[in-house]
Amino acid sequence: MEIRVKKDELLTGVDIVSKAVKEKSPMPILECILFTVIDDEIRLMANDTEFSIETVIKGDIKETGMVAIDAKTLTGLVKKLPNDDVLIITDEKAAAIKCGKLKANVPVRDGSGFPAVPVVSRETAVKISQFSLREIIRQTIFCSDDKKANKMMGAELFNISGNRLNVTALDGCRIAFRSIELKDSYEDRTAIIPSKALKDLSSIIPGGVNDEVEICFTDNHVLFGFDDTTVVARLVDGKYFDTEKMLNMSYSTQVKVNKRELLESIDRSTLFLSNIDKQPVVVDITGNTLEWKITSSHGSMTEDLDVSTSGNDLKIGFNPKFLMEALKAIDDEEVTLHLESAKMPAAIKDDAENYVYFILPVNFQ
Amino acid sequence: MEIRVKKDELLTGVDIVSKAVKEKSPMPILECILFTVIDDEIRLMANDTEFSIETVIKGDIKETGMVAIDAKTLTGLVKKLPNDDVLIITDEKAAAIKCGKLKANVPVRDGSGFPAVPVVSRETAVKISQFSLREIIRQTIFCSDDKKANKMMGAELFNISGNRLNVTALDGCRIAFRSIELKDSYEDRTAIIPSKALKDLSSIIPGGVNDEVEICFTDNHVLFGFDDTTVVARLVDGKYFDTEKMLNMSYSTQVKVNKRELLESIDRSTLFLSNIDKQPVVVDITGNTLEWKITSSHGSMTEDLDVSTSGNDLKIGFNPKFLMEALKAIDDEEVTLHLESAKMPAAIKDDAENYVYFILPVNFQ
Repeated sequence: MEIRVKKDELLTGVDIVSKAVKEKSPMPILECILFTVIDDEIRLMANDTEFSIETVIKGDIKETGMVAIDAKTLTGLVKKLPNDDVLIITDEKAAAIKCGKLKANVPVRDGSGFPAVPVVSRETAVKISQFSLREIIRQTIFCSDDKKANKMMGAELFNISGNRLNVTALDGCRIAFRSIELKDSYEDRTAIIPSKALKDLSSIIPGGVNDEVEICFTDNHVLFGFDDTTVVARLVDGKYFDTEKMLNMSYSTQVKVNKRELLESIDRSTLFLSNIDKQPVVVDITGNTLEWKITSSHGSMTEDLDVSTSGNDLKIGFNPKFLMEALKAIDDEEVTLHLESAKMPAAIKDDAENYVYFILPVNFQ
Repeated sequence: MEIRVKKDELLTGVDIVSKAVKEKSPMPILECILFTVIDDEIRLMANDTEFSIETVIKGDIKETGMVAIDAKTLTGLVKKLPNDDVLIITDEKAAAIKCGKLKANVPVRDGSGFPAVPVVSRETAVKISQFSLREIIRQTIFCSDDKKANKMMGAELFNISGNRLNVTALDGCRIAFRSIELKDSYEDRTAIIPSKALKDLSSIIPGGVNDEVEICFTDNHVLFGFDDTTVVARLVDGKYFDTEKMLNMSYSTQVKVNKRELLESIDRSTLFLSNIDKQPVVVDITGNTLEWKITSSHGSMTEDLDVSTSGNDLKIGFNPKFLMEALKAIDDEEVTLHLESAKMPAAIKDDAENYVYFILPVNFQ
């Protein structure tokens, strides 16, 4: 194989596919990036068997070939190359990489040992803007937790229903639900996609509002195609949680509040908590006033916000981190807290239910 | 004590003095910031007994007083306050801090228990621009190492000689020497200043070219005065290393090289080193070519640079980090390496010896 590519082009390609490289694997070939050079295409690929990324880069092809190059060495090297043409010439043993006055030799592996990417037909693709897909992942992913024993909590439910994409994530203490309108309508389908794959995906989607991503499903895989890049992830097998009942809950108290004020105020309230994960912030709603009160060995503090309340007065404790993360995922200037009692989950949702965040309360006293 | 200050003004003051707060001390008062409010001055101070910072902030004074407030709680709180006036009212037990709708109570300590700052007369002060002082610290401090058993290695020698300030730092493997011209001439004097104090100092000097710092010495202390801030540090007692002999060494080989090219090239050469601290980079100088060659389990690489050499051909090994740090501290486009043999220290210095960096070579093979 012999190719000549611009340093920046090579760096972009290598950066994109590195997300699917295993850092340490009993199969050393998974620590490599596969170069497949055919006819007029230079294709880079990485595959950790659960998740693969393939991308095409521009360059001059002198000789076709297929070779796997150690990803860590290659990425480190390409990052530090001068801004010049990079010449890569490989034989069975090594890749000779030349750029400016630098010559490096990096060991290679036989590319034919590389695991193949599952075939996913792109015939019936759901189309969504890159921006919307990245946003819906950002707005839900923090409610999933891949450290939990339950695999479903480390994944998100993608549900296509008519012309809507609905995404659900939950970690046992909270639920994120987001729904967006698509340009076209599609046949109904659901898929449970690992959070790690979605995080990696959203870090490599450029995110243009007018640029599209195609999403294609098989029974076991999902494919995301955008620009010159294809991402394929294995789906989580099984049945996702039934969150329907939660979505239909009713709440006797509604509290409308300025989002920024609420967020900054909760943030301040955490100052006096010695352990943010264990100590709740207690909200006291009395008429149109929402008040925090915190007392600890470091001192005490209190702050009240003007809100617009309909329903009963209420006192309820929250993990402040959960409240803050949900608020940060909402773009609206005003948000409404829906509350029932100190023991029942609270919801932050808009009228159209394009977003619903459920948060379990925390016992206090 | 009762004062009203703008949030930003308070934050700036608290940020400056926090550098001298002990994080954990058997004397809890050292974990505090001392507020001294007299007549028309609000003075903030912290003192870890080796190093103290005092600064004056603007604000309205309702009642004078002196009180020590826990630095960590105060700093955390002030950072997160809304951009508004902050009212601080203290009694013997607590400081009530009010800002917008927030009310906080932070425990206080009796300010009279706070250790006093040593008195340093500002009568005969050495004057230097804030920019120059910050630069000379940056350009030398990386050659000091306060983890070494020898206290001198965790300090810098400041030497005033006529109208020059000379600064020396060394860590046993390398020496940094910098000399700058001052506007005025002063009586000769030397002082050994702890690196930690210099690092903290340079992080709070705004660094304006036309703004001045006054430096005053006693036998045991040094004072740096700038804007509304005074920093006092205890000097290291003893005799500093004699580096005179090193400065007068002669070298048979001179290699003139483009600094940026050399720096980028060394940086790339480290890619294939598995342990940057233990494995040297070997430089091979043959006529007007400087060549690196690295071979490791990750592969091999070689790069040559065009240089202008006078003297003998030479092969010498370096800790690449030492070379890079010295080069980064030099602003010149071209630098000259002065070499004698593979066993003798190398120097990077300019003709006027405004800067001299000595680096011990590393054995190779």
